[in-house]
Amino acid sequence: MLFTKTKKEAPADEVSRNAELLIRGGFIHKEMSGVYSYLPLGLRVFNKIISIIREEMNNIGGQEVLLGALQDKSTWEPTNQWNDNEVDVWFKTKLKNETELGLAVTHEAPMTKMLTEFIRSYKDLPKAIYHFQIKFRNEIRAKSGIMRTREFIMKDLYSFNINEKNHLEFYEKAKEAYKNIFKRVGIGHITYLTFASGGMFSKFSHEFQTLTSTGEDTIYINEENNIAINKEVFTDKIKKSLGLSGNFKEAKAVEVGNIFTLGTKFSDALNLKYQTEGGENKSVFMGSYGIGPGRVMGTVVEVLSDDKGIIWPSSIAPFTVHLLALGDDKEISKEAVKVYESLLKANIEVLFDDRTGMSAGEKFADADLLGIPWRAVVSTRSISEGGIEIKKRSEEKGKVIPLDELLKMLASK
Amino acid sequence: MLFTKTKKEAPADEVSRNAELLIRGGFIHKEMSGVYSYLPLGLRVFNKIISIIREEMNNIGGQEVLLGALQDKSTWEPTNQWNDNEVDVWFKTKLKNETELGLAVTHEAPMTKMLTEFIRSYKDLPKAIYHFQIKFRNEIRAKSGIMRTREFIMKDLYSFNINEKNHLEFYEKAKEAYKNIFKRVGIGHITYLTFASGGMFSKFSHEFQTLTSTGEDTIYINEENNIAINKEVFTDKIKKSLGLSGNFKEAKAVEVGNIFTLGTKFSDALNLKYQTEGGENKSVFMGSYGIGPGRVMGTVVEVLSDDKGIIWPSSIAPFTVHLLALGDDKEISKEAVKVYESLLKANIEVLFDDRTGMSAGEKFADADLLGIPWRAVVSTRSISEGGIEIKKRSEEKGKVIPLDELLKMLASK
Repeated sequence: MLFTKTKKEAPADEVSRNAELLIRGGFIHKEMSGVYSYLPLGLRVFNKIISIIREEMNNIGGQEVLLGALQDKSTWEPTNQWNDNEVDVWFKTKLKNETELGLAVTHEAPMTKMLTEFIRSYKDLPKAIYHFQIKFRNEIRAKSGIMRTREFIMKDLYSFNINEKNHLEFYEKAKEAYKNIFKRVGIGHITYLTFASGGMFSKFSHEFQTLTSTGEDTIYINEENNIAINKEVFTDKIKKSLGLSGNFKEAKAVEVGNIFTLGTKFSDALNLKYQTEGGENKSVFMGSYGIGPGRVMGTVVEVLSDDKGIIWPSSIAPFTVHLLALGDDKEISKEAVKVYESLLKANIEVLFDDRTGMSAGEKFADADLLGIPWRAVVSTRSISEGGIEIKKRSEEKGKVIPLDELLKMLASK
Repeated sequence: MLFTKTKKEAPADEVSRNAELLIRGGFIHKEMSGVYSYLPLGLRVFNKIISIIREEMNNIGGQEVLLGALQDKSTWEPTNQWNDNEVDVWFKTKLKNETELGLAVTHEAPMTKMLTEFIRSYKDLPKAIYHFQIKFRNEIRAKSGIMRTREFIMKDLYSFNINEKNHLEFYEKAKEAYKNIFKRVGIGHITYLTFASGGMFSKFSHEFQTLTSTGEDTIYINEENNIAINKEVFTDKIKKSLGLSGNFKEAKAVEVGNIFTLGTKFSDALNLKYQTEGGENKSVFMGSYGIGPGRVMGTVVEVLSDDKGIIWPSSIAPFTVHLLALGDDKEISKEAVKVYESLLKANIEVLFDDRTGMSAGEKFADADLLGIPWRAVVSTRSISEGGIEIKKRSEEKGKVIPLDELLKMLASK
């Protein structure tokens, strides 16, 4: 039995749709502005998104590690990014002896530094190394639910190649892996590869932008080429350099992923060199590839929900089916337990609403709010019609089918 | 191919055996004093320990969540634990508007606070809720490798019951779950349930102490009852209150887990009440149950290693078998690749040492250092004898067996 409860209202200070629905559904809990807990339902979704990302990173040769969240000054000084004027979202803290430490904003520098211990020769390259680790960002405002928080887990992968040509080959693979991720979590059809500025790490970058009216970014979409340009760099010069002409459609969007060419910025600064076949010492050519599973989860809620609640894609839904026992009499309860046990036995992920003393309307409303892809109802009517009423969250009408058919149908989902 | 390399030496400032072997083997990387990265080999071990802990927590009804690492003052003030004199290992930081935040030392208070939103009535109890989340401890010294670090992931479970009686029933179950964990990771035979002081959270606690000459603690073992008492509370009064008499053997040990009865300390302070069947408001009775998978991993290395390296128990070994191709000629390489692919196909976790230009001695030394339970060697000799030489890490002698026998044998491990 879940310890969470659904709520009628989200906290009054929550203005974002994702926070409202996720808090009301008991997926997340707000600890303070910009800091959320993941509750059992939310953690299931979160972990499924993480698994999809991990699979795609492993498919392009990524090796998983786990770096620390505490960072030291010496790591970020060579690129001048310890400076609060250069990187303005640091949280800093201190050891007992007054030594300053920083909380990971990102991990380019410590990853580069670590690799100096393992890369010596061209034979040690290429490498692609990633982790899922908390980032801390000292944001002035945190008003977008789990889409912009002061701490969040990010998958960041770093690529290490002998030169730009090999780097760009990997970069194209990473683009495809990112496209796969967004397709698999159910937002591929509204997510655009978007040319953007590089922020603090490089001149330009590619963002993945998902269309939503609540998005913080404005992008210009070129449908012919299935690509977009972020408003911040939408100039004739850039259009020309990308070989894009024709129509651009303005749209609001949210950034769900970001990939950068870093070049030799970090390897020069932190002395990550390799010896070429000819014996020459050269700087490693790097790239950086980020995605926040929480941001992805929040975006899915923003774009895949209706006025009743969330509509999870089955790939990341907390459960496959939401089983509701309607009415408190013994026959119904007995039948519902039988269905529940059959689903468990068939390895179908099921959430069982066996709460008593609640009306059908209340249970339906909770099921709509939680947004599990299938709703299975055991009631006097369904029993009299010889089965269970099954309905898709995304459809209006259900139908009554016998248990064996239900098991067969859901096993294939 | 792993990006890590074995090393002849650990950093000069590492004095602990676990850090020395884990760094030399490429399991972990030292970022700074008290902060380590987990490299691919180390992360595999770490995740296997986490899986075992998670299974045992789920078995006693634990529900998994994920709370934040940033904490606010108001959460810890009611128990006076925001005060740096009361809790002397805080790392503190600040928002841009100067609001002070703390980095999670532990999560009793935020977990209690969160539960006030979900617990109303005796019907909502009991509950057991846990997470795996980073803790930050501003330790003055951090000299024990991954056994005492400034940041580390901890599994902390909190139990919520209507009264002490029900709490103690759960507490006994948690004890058994902890015993299972230590048994499963291979240190059950040298780990003692140990009566100890309660530190900052309660009067007394139970620690799980693993015998090792490098341990920071001294315990007194009562073999007859398979229980120990920590030196800090080893008095006649305590012995009497526990009903223990007879012989006590002094030993050095390291604390690998810790369980506390919290009582109503946090629920009183943070107003976590429930309504009894009779309509009365009462404080929830709580317990706290901690274990650090990194500390467990370090302890396993301290106690299960020899002068050549680590000897992983198969339950948490990074791989089941370490396959070595000895000699650089084509026939050996072809045969080794065939064995490797057969192992992969049979779903046996294999690390393949296909490095060229290395002597048999160097490869054997690395295999011993890495400590994978089985070593499989393909060499001119093994091929001439019709198979692969298989040897246990913990034994001196191996034997040559054919491939099908190897697959059969390892599949059952």
